[in-house]
Amino acid sequence: MLRSLLTLLPKISPSGLRPCSSSAQKLVLTEVDDKTGYATVTLNRPPVNSLNLELLKGISESLDDLQNNKCRGMILTSSSKTVFSAGLDILEMYKPNPDRLKEFWSTLQDVWFKLYGSPFPTAAAINGHAPAGGCLLSLCCEYRIMCPNYTIGLNETQLGIVAPTWFQASLRNTISRRDAELALTLGTLFTSEQALKIGLVDELANNKEDALAKATAFLEKFKKISPQARSMTKQALRSKEIMELEDNRSQDIDLFVYAVTQPKVQQSLELYLEALKKKAAK
Amino acid sequence: MLRSLLTLLPKISPSGLRPCSSSAQKLVLTEVDDKTGYATVTLNRPPVNSLNLELLKGISESLDDLQNNKCRGMILTSSSKTVFSAGLDILEMYKPNPDRLKEFWSTLQDVWFKLYGSPFPTAAAINGHAPAGGCLLSLCCEYRIMCPNYTIGLNETQLGIVAPTWFQASLRNTISRRDAELALTLGTLFTSEQALKIGLVDELANNKEDALAKATAFLEKFKKISPQARSMTKQALRSKEIMELEDNRSQDIDLFVYAVTQPKVQQSLELYLEALKKKAAK
Amino acid sequence: MLRSLLTLLPKISPSGLRPCSSSAQKLVLTEVDDKTGYATVTLNRPPVNSLNLELLKGISESLDDLQNNKCRGMILTSSSKTVFSAGLDILEMYKPNPDRLKEFWSTLQDVWFKLYGSPFPTAAAINGHAPAGGCLLSLCCEYRIMCPNYTIGLNETQLGIVAPTWFQASLRNTISRRDAELALTLGTLFTSEQALKIGLVDELANNKEDALAKATAFLEKFKKISPQARSMTKQALRSKEIMELEDNRSQDIDLFVYAVTQPKVQQSLELYLEALKKKAAK
Repeated sequence: MLRSLLTLLPKISPSGLRPCSSSAQKLVLTEVDDKTGYATVTLNRPPVNSLNLELLKGISESLDDLQNNKCRGMILTSSSKTVFSAGLDILEMYKPNPDRLKEFWSTLQDVWFKLYGSPFPTAAAINGHAPAGGCLLSLCCEYRIMCPNYTIGLNETQLGIVAPTWFQASLRNTISRRDAELALTLGTLFTSEQALKIGLVDELANNKEDALAKATAFLEKFKKISPQARSMTKQALRSKEIMELEDNRSQDIDLFVYAVTQPKVQQSLELYLEALKKKAAK
Repeated sequence: MLRSLLTLLPKISPSGLRPCSSSAQKLVLTEVDDKTGYATVTLNRPPVNSLNLELLKGISESLDDLQNNKCRGMILTSSSKTVFSAGLDILEMYKPNPDRLKEFWSTLQDVWFKLYGSPFPTAAAINGHAPAGGCLLSLCCEYRIMCPNYTIGLNETQLGIVAPTWFQASLRNTISRRDAELALTLGTLFTSEQALKIGLVDELANNKEDALAKATAFLEKFKKISPQARSMTKQALRSKEIMELEDNRSQDIDLFVYAVTQPKVQQSLELYLEALKKKAAK
Repeated sequence: MLRSLLTLLPKISPSGLRPCSSSAQKLVLTEVDDKTGYATVTLNRPPVNSLNLELLKGISESLDDLQNNKCRGMILTSSSKTVFSAGLDILEMYKPNPDRLKEFWSTLQDVWFKLYGSPFPTAAAINGHAPAGGCLLSLCCEYRIMCPNYTIGLNETQLGIVAPTWFQASLRNTISRRDAELALTLGTLFTSEQALKIGLVDELANNKEDALAKATAFLEKFKKISPQARSMTKQALRSKEIMELEDNRSQDIDLFVYAVTQPKVQQSLELYLEALKKKAAK
């Protein structure tokens, strides 16, 4: 397990170990284009947009703002040049404070509810690697454009963990059941090109600018469509998965806390963090 | 919204505004081939087979007759040269009589139950445009053959409305979840060729005659198969969607009546009907 | 119905009528490769691996053994040169002893639970025909490699019977809903090449040796993955179908017993067995 994790390291900078304080800078940047009315939400927690509690809260609040301001469409992207999001921040799970751990998971659930079920249309401009939680964020969107030569996937089994059922459901909403089973059990990280082939992403783009343009073009397709009709249609299509998590929120948190606090998992995380530090020290 | 509707007008004749009385002619023509035992059910409400209460009743009764006579297979087609069915008749929804409105929706549900769950095999020979309710009728069949240069799709969001969950389920039984989500939120009307590509139809045909021949060839595949075994297999496969609507029939009617009688929707329908009249007057 | 069954005869030897006693030989051969730790489970009931109670018990016990010994991976194959498994043994259903009939079906359910939900990864090396129950066994595995020029499919409707919902679910976990509906209602037996095209099998192999090598290569992909994480992921993905049968085990048995003991079905089986005998006598 460790070996396969370490192969990711050249791509995901180990300086991810030093979390930035949320006061020092904005973790989520939201810009609204006056002409189109579309919001670009940029994940901005250098170096790799590891999803810690503060970043998740930032995303959650941004989504609330967009909804309250009757956003016409949203593009999710990253300020990093190589990473869309490296996924959940391991430091949130290693020797965790129990209350913070629960809040962390509950906030991730919030982000999923708000993004997967958003009334406004959403597109991900995936301008870098998107493993695990990074992939999940893109799967919540309705359309994915990816820059070449990166990797994406729910690779949880490669990390020795299990993607929760709502992670799985998000993937199964996107690719075929057959591909989803193989991808989830193998924990496959797909290249951009492979991801396009199985439908995990919808288009490739030459670079971030191109990805943003293609995301805008997707949102433009809804220009003449009643926002209410389309949001009700989307929510009807996604209601089953949403209700399943709604009915199981607290059990899902308990399960996560139980799994994370297992001695074996803590040991794994420790080994992983040490390996990251050694790598960083080189 | 209106603009996108009007683009359909050159294709769907505005004379659809003048409903034919059901006594003047038969709205549904059923012919049984003595050699094959297959029934051809032809929608015959000129000019565009708008689904009003009488036409839906005609379809429902035809399906009952076929079932009572142990039909060996059915082909659904249209007497129009350019339209399979233009979908639900807007006149049923504009300033509606409350009782008739309920009966209208309940009869549409009946048609869906009888066609989606029919014991006999079914094929649609789609010899013209099939938007919205027209598409739904073809989706209830087990096989779709379409003539070229027409359009098909559940384009409800383009009309400012929401395809009910059982419309959505019929589509999701046919094409991939991914394609279904995009098609339903965008309200896409696919060309015959695009429909073939995503599996919304199974084959293209050169003309109506060819479509009917191909539909017959599909039904022939069941010639040596026990009718009881195949009908039980079909119904097992489709039971989940059927039970979901069965459990929610009255709520589904209430929801439809509520949605249609909203002042905003009535206003939309009025604008749409006026546009149709202007178009017709030219 | 009979005619289509008889077309299978040249492929499936009629000597299948003489069941081997289970004491005379081992019906299931299990070999564990010391180097890889993978087990090869070989169905060994000549001539066509008809699934009778004893063979099913043998499979069930082999699966228990593998699970108890923390098997790292399993390959399912056949000792026959032309048949993977011909499916359920008709002699179990013709003039059955009621208690044995129930045990027969209950044991098939056991095999399905243990194989479809196995904690270890599974691959089928399909080195011969795999109709009906033979196809089901391969569908329970996570990966299928097939030798060319054979046939595979849930062809129950061609035999005048209905594939139970859990057979159907196993197919729907593998190929698209659209293809599954057509395959199940038509009772299609696909050639190896057709099966590859619709995803019913994952790879073709030149011969049994090649198939076993490719199955091993598939299992190797999990080498660096935590067995616990992957088994929990697999079981989460397959839990819905597993729970559905768990909740309906006894009704499912009753339904099978009821269907099999219908005079019409008994008559069909008698005709079928007579045809087999005549064929064997030639």
